[in-house]
Amino acid sequence: HKYVGIVSSLNHPYEALLQKAAEKAEYAKQKGFEAMLKAHVNHWANIWIHSDIKIEGDVAAQQGIRFNIFHLNQTYTGDDERLNIGPKGFTGEKYGGTTYWDTEAYCIPFFIATAPTSVTRNLLVYRYKHLQKAIENAQKLGFTNGAALYPMVTINGEECHNEWEITFEEIHRNGAIAFAIFNYIRHTEDYAYLEEYGLEVLIGIARFWAQRVNWSVEKKKFVILGVTGPNEYENNVNNNWYTNKMAVWCMKYAAESVERVKNSNPARYKEIIDKTNFDAASETAEWKNIVDNMYFPYNEELQVFMQQDGYMDKLQLTASDIPLAERPINQHWSWDRILRSCFIKQADTLQGIYVFEDEYDTETIRRHFNFYEPRTVHESSLSPCVHTILAARIAKLDKAYEMYLRTSRLDLDDYNREVHEGLHITSMAGTWMSIVEGFGGKRVQNGNLLVNPIIPVQWNSYSFRIRFKESDMEIRVTQKEVSISSHSDKTIELYVYSEKVVVKPGESKVVALKPDYYA
Amino acid sequence: HKYVGIVSSLNHPYEALLQKAAEKAEYAKQKGFEAMLKAHVNHWANIWIHSDIKIEGDVAAQQGIRFNIFHLNQTYTGDDERLNIGPKGFTGEKYGGTTYWDTEAYCIPFFIATAPTSVTRNLLVYRYKHLQKAIENAQKLGFTNGAALYPMVTINGEECHNEWEITFEEIHRNGAIAFAIFNYIRHTEDYAYLEEYGLEVLIGIARFWAQRVNWSVEKKKFVILGVTGPNEYENNVNNNWYTNKMAVWCMKYAAESVERVKNSNPARYKEIIDKTNFDAASETAEWKNIVDNMYFPYNEELQVFMQQDGYMDKLQLTASDIPLAERPINQHWSWDRILRSCFIKQADTLQGIYVFEDEYDTETIRRHFNFYEPRTVHESSLSPCVHTILAARIAKLDKAYEMYLRTSRLDLDDYNREVHEGLHITSMAGTWMSIVEGFGGKRVQNGNLLVNPIIPVQWNSYSFRIRFKESDMEIRVTQKEVSISSHSDKTIELYVYSEKVVVKPGESKVVALKPDYYA
Repeated sequence: HKYVGIVSSLNHPYEALLQKAAEKAEYAKQKGFEAMLKAHVNHWANIWIHSDIKIEGDVAAQQGIRFNIFHLNQTYTGDDERLNIGPKGFTGEKYGGTTYWDTEAYCIPFFIATAPTSVTRNLLVYRYKHLQKAIENAQKLGFTNGAALYPMVTINGEECHNEWEITFEEIHRNGAIAFAIFNYIRHTEDYAYLEEYGLEVLIGIARFWAQRVNWSVEKKKFVILGVTGPNEYENNVNNNWYTNKMAVWCMKYAAESVERVKNSNPARYKEIIDKTNFDAASETAEWKNIVDNMYFPYNEELQVFMQQDGYMDKLQLTASDIPLAERPINQHWSWDRILRSCFIKQADTLQGIYVFEDEYDTETIRRHFNFYEPRTVHESSLSPCVHTILAARIAKLDKAYEMYLRTSRLDLDDYNREVHEGLHITSMAGTWMSIVEGFGGKRVQNGNLLVNPIIPVQWNSYSFRIRFKESDMEIRVTQKEVSISSHSDKTIELYVYSEKVVVKPGESKVVALKPDYYA
Repeated sequence: HKYVGIVSSLNHPYEALLQKAAEKAEYAKQKGFEAMLKAHVNHWANIWIHSDIKIEGDVAAQQGIRFNIFHLNQTYTGDDERLNIGPKGFTGEKYGGTTYWDTEAYCIPFFIATAPTSVTRNLLVYRYKHLQKAIENAQKLGFTNGAALYPMVTINGEECHNEWEITFEEIHRNGAIAFAIFNYIRHTEDYAYLEEYGLEVLIGIARFWAQRVNWSVEKKKFVILGVTGPNEYENNVNNNWYTNKMAVWCMKYAAESVERVKNSNPARYKEIIDKTNFDAASETAEWKNIVDNMYFPYNEELQVFMQQDGYMDKLQLTASDIPLAERPINQHWSWDRILRSCFIKQADTLQGIYVFEDEYDTETIRRHFNFYEPRTVHESSLSPCVHTILAARIAKLDKAYEMYLRTSRLDLDDYNREVHEGLHITSMAGTWMSIVEGFGGKRVQNGNLLVNPIIPVQWNSYSFRIRFKESDMEIRVTQKEVSISSHSDKTIELYVYSEKVVVKPGESKVVALKPDYYA
């Protein structure tokens, strides 16, 4: 056997690298191949226990999802808070190993449910450690008083993107970073994180939004001008609904978090207000005023939130109007034509409907889906998963399955003839979400875990495992029933189709499948 | 004496250059220094006769305007239709010697009034020769059927600018190129130009606008989305009033020109429709439909056309709210902050009010000036001249003079500490316009020449010379009177303060100054 030690200057002084590598190799040699292999196998076996999805009756789908789960775990171990996840992982040089909002919007939902708490926590601490850089990034743009704008793309906290329409306009990313803190805490109840790290980040982000809005005398509301939403096929638009929604949510959550830490840990609270020079009374009052008076573009006739102020001035077509020979449009149309078209690259208003689903009834979700999805060309690998989840939510199972197929074997089958650029690592997490949140209907609402499963007719069964607070369970869905098996040493409570289900340690419960629950 | 011959590979094969240069030097030597000098002096003397502006009582102003007139004539002789005018002329490398809409918007008004017809004609032919490239430029963006988009910046007809917000959004330049044809013809009655060159250009430009608009179901009007107006401190806006106005004007003028050539020169007309594959009936009907149904943003309360759809959503401030230490904002503010501010780089809506002044009464012009000028930071050297002209038009003589001072000695006094980059050649033409169109009130309306002079209190008198159709005259303005001296061999008719004045060859007429004519 040949033993190799791999070390990095991230962890050792440059001049010590040779010595450290030799030590590693020597250590491996001492342990021997069999022992090393065994440790490796055990490590992966444990990962698979918690993150595997089993699909019966569809070998291609089974292979697809396992390929994705393997690569997600291969890319990020969660041991080092200085590291994050590039859209291509280590499989290609595109995007240069840098970090995007993909981490918060797509990867965290995966790791939060399948990996130990520390893994997601480290992804959050990564952003905390970049807070000062985010404040400097905002300062460069003219913001003051500790307002923080996280970069669109980064490797060390500084903005690494080079286009103005992205760097200072695609600011919704700031919302995703705040939302990830909320999402982490609702899954883990790790309020210590909020005290130690989260609150400072939330204050910086809320301050950014409070300075980024302006009062429109015409609309008599606060507006957010000159942004790029998740749909990068529009730039420099006014009042992107998703961005406005995210901004308001951030200010609301930051104010709540200020109140919580003030009560839960007054000493730490004092430290934070001193460090951030935070004027709690006036700043939170300002946030509240903005929250109460934000403008949201809405079309009364359609009863649909508008992606942005000028959206209905565009020529209204649907993706089916585009000749197949011109798809994807980003390879056939000029940027001029794309920007002026109504076609949507990836979920934008629907991304907001997904994130804030609790606030809307099924009819509202359906109306928005039926308006926006036909206008969406899904030319981002991050697009189909949100559509799968929402299609499932409105009982459009065929559509959900169609959308799911777009991502499930994207790289294995090299649909887009671009796999030489590397794998779509972050969108792989979206495929996991498609199954668990889409077909499985997993949600967290008011501190409770909910599952509302449906199952594609093409599958006999599927199962996945979820960590939630101190629970650990497997959900298995067949064409007839849903079973929940506990792997916890505490009694589990969750809601299946709105009915509370209690599962004792080591036991299982079975509930009849309700394929029409959302119909 | 030492004789030097300068030749260019533009005119001779590379391998012949040395020989040709030697011939030139030999020719000069044969003529001798005195004869060469005399020819040079005579040539310049003739230029000065036609283009000089004399200002009495203000030596600094006199020096300023002559410095400008010298450089304009030094930069462009009008002998070669392959050449044009760079914003820095030959005085600096900034802008790389390329051509902008500055030529049509600023330089042509100068040359048209001071130089032989052929000089301006060659500037127009320059664009005619680039028509095929303009069509290709539009094709690259997805336009069809001979639609032409002239480049923002060019050296050979191809677009040489590199920013999308300029190249395919600052499309109002197409209007300036069409308007220059109209402006040339109304000064010269050279309708042969329209037949030979102009109409093809107009058809290409009108076709562009017809494809560039789209129908808004919401507004029930045609709209022009995603443009940058003359105010480059906004990008990607919808319904920039100036652009919409220019587009409509182009389609109207193109349709009229089609009709004119059809009647004036049926043979040439047939050639053109064959060459351009022009379907006169349906295409002009389409243009008319757009002209009749174009959307123009207008604020009812203010009774002011809006620079763009979202302008009133911006925080409304005036330039006086900006601390002096932060001026110019383009050296102190982030691009994010500039784009979202209400501050205007250079005349935008007012540029349209200037171009289409005939359509508006003094009250309307005043209302627009009073709304937009205070929001304008004049951070383009092309800004003050239009404001001088409009300020004079609404009897704000102090403001007109203040604006005039901003450009008159811009380079001589190096106000902006940037003269090392080269002189502002194209804005020098704006200074000439400030005097002739601003203080002199020179206009062409319905085929007639109008002058409505006022005079700054700081000056004893000023005079300028104008070519118009077959006329050639000098206008001299004192604090008491306006005199018009003919240099024509035909009787001149013009309107001074709306009164017709007839001047016989070699004679002069005197009219009392009406400083309050526009009050």
